[in-house]
Amino acid sequence: MSDLFYNSPTLTEWRGAAGHDWPAYVTHDFVKGLADGTLPAEAFQRYLIQDYIFLVHFTRAWAMAVVKSESLEEMKIAAATVDALVNQEMQLHVQTCLKAGISEDQLYGAEEAVENLTYTRFVMDAGISGDFLDLMAALSPCVFGYGEIGLFTQKTKQAGTSYHEWIEAYSGNDYQNLCLNVAAMVEKATLSRLGPRPFENPRWPSLCKRFQTATKLETNFWEMGLKGSKW
Amino acid sequence: MSDLFYNSPTLTEWRGAAGHDWPAYVTHDFVKGLADGTLPAEAFQRYLIQDYIFLVHFTRAWAMAVVKSESLEEMKIAAATVDALVNQEMQLHVQTCLKAGISEDQLYGAEEAVENLTYTRFVMDAGISGDFLDLMAALSPCVFGYGEIGLFTQKTKQAGTSYHEWIEAYSGNDYQNLCLNVAAMVEKATLSRLGPRPFENPRWPSLCKRFQTATKLETNFWEMGLKGSKW
Amino acid sequence: MSDLFYNSPTLTEWRGAAGHDWPAYVTHDFVKGLADGTLPAEAFQRYLIQDYIFLVHFTRAWAMAVVKSESLEEMKIAAATVDALVNQEMQLHVQTCLKAGISEDQLYGAEEAVENLTYTRFVMDAGISGDFLDLMAALSPCVFGYGEIGLFTQKTKQAGTSYHEWIEAYSGNDYQNLCLNVAAMVEKATLSRLGPRPFENPRWPSLCKRFQTATKLETNFWEMGLKGSKW
Amino acid sequence: MSDLFYNSPTLTEWRGAAGHDWPAYVTHDFVKGLADGTLPAEAFQRYLIQDYIFLVHFTRAWAMAVVKSESLEEMKIAAATVDALVNQEMQLHVQTCLKAGISEDQLYGAEEAVENLTYTRFVMDAGISGDFLDLMAALSPCVFGYGEIGLFTQKTKQAGTSYHEWIEAYSGNDYQNLCLNVAAMVEKATLSRLGPRPFENPRWPSLCKRFQTATKLETNFWEMGLKGSKW
Repeated sequence: MSDLFYNSPTLTEWRGAAGHDWPAYVTHDFVKGLADGTLPAEAFQRYLIQDYIFLVHFTRAWAMAVVKSESLEEMKIAAATVDALVNQEMQLHVQTCLKAGISEDQLYGAEEAVENLTYTRFVMDAGISGDFLDLMAALSPCVFGYGEIGLFTQKTKQAGTSYHEWIEAYSGNDYQNLCLNVAAMVEKATLSRLGPRPFENPRWPSLCKRFQTATKLETNFWEMGLKGSKW
Repeated sequence: MSDLFYNSPTLTEWRGAAGHDWPAYVTHDFVKGLADGTLPAEAFQRYLIQDYIFLVHFTRAWAMAVVKSESLEEMKIAAATVDALVNQEMQLHVQTCLKAGISEDQLYGAEEAVENLTYTRFVMDAGISGDFLDLMAALSPCVFGYGEIGLFTQKTKQAGTSYHEWIEAYSGNDYQNLCLNVAAMVEKATLSRLGPRPFENPRWPSLCKRFQTATKLETNFWEMGLKGSKW
Repeated sequence: MSDLFYNSPTLTEWRGAAGHDWPAYVTHDFVKGLADGTLPAEAFQRYLIQDYIFLVHFTRAWAMAVVKSESLEEMKIAAATVDALVNQEMQLHVQTCLKAGISEDQLYGAEEAVENLTYTRFVMDAGISGDFLDLMAALSPCVFGYGEIGLFTQKTKQAGTSYHEWIEAYSGNDYQNLCLNVAAMVEKATLSRLGPRPFENPRWPSLCKRFQTATKLETNFWEMGLKGSKW
Repeated sequence: MSDLFYNSPTLTEWRGAAGHDWPAYVTHDFVKGLADGTLPAEAFQRYLIQDYIFLVHFTRAWAMAVVKSESLEEMKIAAATVDALVNQEMQLHVQTCLKAGISEDQLYGAEEAVENLTYTRFVMDAGISGDFLDLMAALSPCVFGYGEIGLFTQKTKQAGTSYHEWIEAYSGNDYQNLCLNVAAMVEKATLSRLGPRPFENPRWPSLCKRFQTATKLETNFWEMGLKGSKW
């Protein structure tokens, strides 16, 4: 039980099937730099600005999940996530950025890095091409990866890292509980579409693939934060 | 100025272009029955149950508006509406229905009347086939029509009508302010897509048509409430 | 084997699960009127005009199937259907209508009956809310029902019915082979998403429901042809 | 007149607004290598395989254009393009690849390069987030850029380049006429949504931006062909 990723067999399998791509994402040098405080301020700023644009499109993708929900529970969790993203997480970013002299309208209009575009449009298309579960497979690496990264950086952080607020945000109870709630819904969404033995369902490899691709695109995003965008 | 429908030239024109279809909707016998209390309880119950299913799909349509928003303001208002629909308006319906012994899960699973299906899927398709503004034209008759109906029933209601809570809900400040906020956003959405003389834009007739069709489908919905569904 | 509906267990089950709604559609009075020639010319004209608008939206729905296809075979069949609908079936209608003095542009711009709107937008939304298979369940009653109706009217037709060309079109080898090809693809699409025992998959009831609703909307369409639209 | 890009003021403006990004795409080293025959065979093979996967998603995007078409002409051209892509252009690729010992199923299942994913999902999302014209702006750099590249390589090609078939395909009358037909439709689509002075419409900058982003993603695609994918 304790070995399950956020108590979900589905998420545990998806993470396992991503192979090396998973640790490459959750223990990326960018992440280590957050924990030990060596991440250059410039890299963090670049990440913050792009993450704001990411949140805009991530909100769109969760809104697509509302469109595609097939149970009351799916709809409620997806709608609450849309609201939390726009009215909490985006506001948090805005405040952090305001301190650095960047307005919300500037943020909304910032030039989108290609690494950002790639990731978010891939997730949106998972919603267009498949069903609610396909979309969940593409959304999960972000939601649950940040949960794991929050705990990892909390455990490995150096005293005095200037990124402790970021670490608190993702390792804190609020975010960790959100992960548990979304994970329970994803698990139920899996069973209600694939049946009691989901790993034997013919869709399984394609769901794993969507999760893995999104994982790789998260790593791309860290690379962009660390080294700058190709654009 | 005071003649403008919720201060919006766009909404005023759309309403005018709907011709007789508009008063047929907002002063329908169902509406008059709410005001004077003569609406049979059975008709109101039928309406309430179907309205719950309507809200599920209306939420999906506003979520599609989040997907299609092209400015921060559009996204914020659409996301807030998704949240308000799921966590406030649907809960209000659930409570009303619980008093009548109908559970939320029963509500979610109730047989959808064909009049409901017609209306909601038409709105969804406006989102798929067009842009954000096309979707707004299809969503507006519900949002602003209920605002007008709230004020109309408030003004004409008989003392002792058992529907006074419903009348309060839609004539009250909360709902009327929501209308004003959404109207301001719709007006801005129009100008930012059609330019300073929107009525001369070639898309104008098609937007009026979407508004008018949705208006007719609202009347269909009242008919279903009053006389029962064809299904 | 010979009892299978177009050789497909999936279609056979879907048809069976539609219960009385299926014969209500395929042996509707409109259909009987085609076979024995008693259908009023006016009803047929009304049907033809609306069927043209139906084909426009049916083409959009098959195009959505291309968007949602997950194998080369699915994509090829869906793309060929889009092409056949626009460049063959719509042209056939245009020619029939031209004889009656109705131009293609008039057809494209004809007022859409509410029964038409209901059906086509329901099918489109099956594509938005679900995956390729959900869309197939909503598209199937039209494709295969017309196949069955073609054979039924061919068998029961009266000599001298003025609708023999229509009967030939749907009972002929071209259309019947199209049905067999699409059925084989639907069968494969089912197995590749639900596994070797699709009827035990938890999605099965919801797929049956989509098929049944589309079947009822076909009957609505015949009613409109026979008695005129509500609009 | 003769200075207009495929006779279309819209396309001419979009191309101009892309600035340096346009020549960076149409006269990329990959293109020059096709013309003078110096492009390594390995690079061409990599491009061919990825281009096949590109065509799958490009077909999906044109199918989305069918879904979003708002006139008979738009629908006919988009549907014909879907058919041409699946049944002609993809087949042409298949044959070229078969000579190199790569089967169609292998092609369909080849690992998608991230440069491919980025481009195609961006185009799909233009269809989801906007209207038909937004989608056309994202689709145009491919359609018309290949037209220009066809003529450019035809004019500059070295005798004996092994890529003469590719050059013939895109400089030939069939492809050039397709460009003219699609361009006429795009021009009409612009006027029917933005009015007689489209460049003054507030949507204009956003349409130019979609065109420019797609142009940059084309250059990314050539880079991938030349140097290999990041994945």
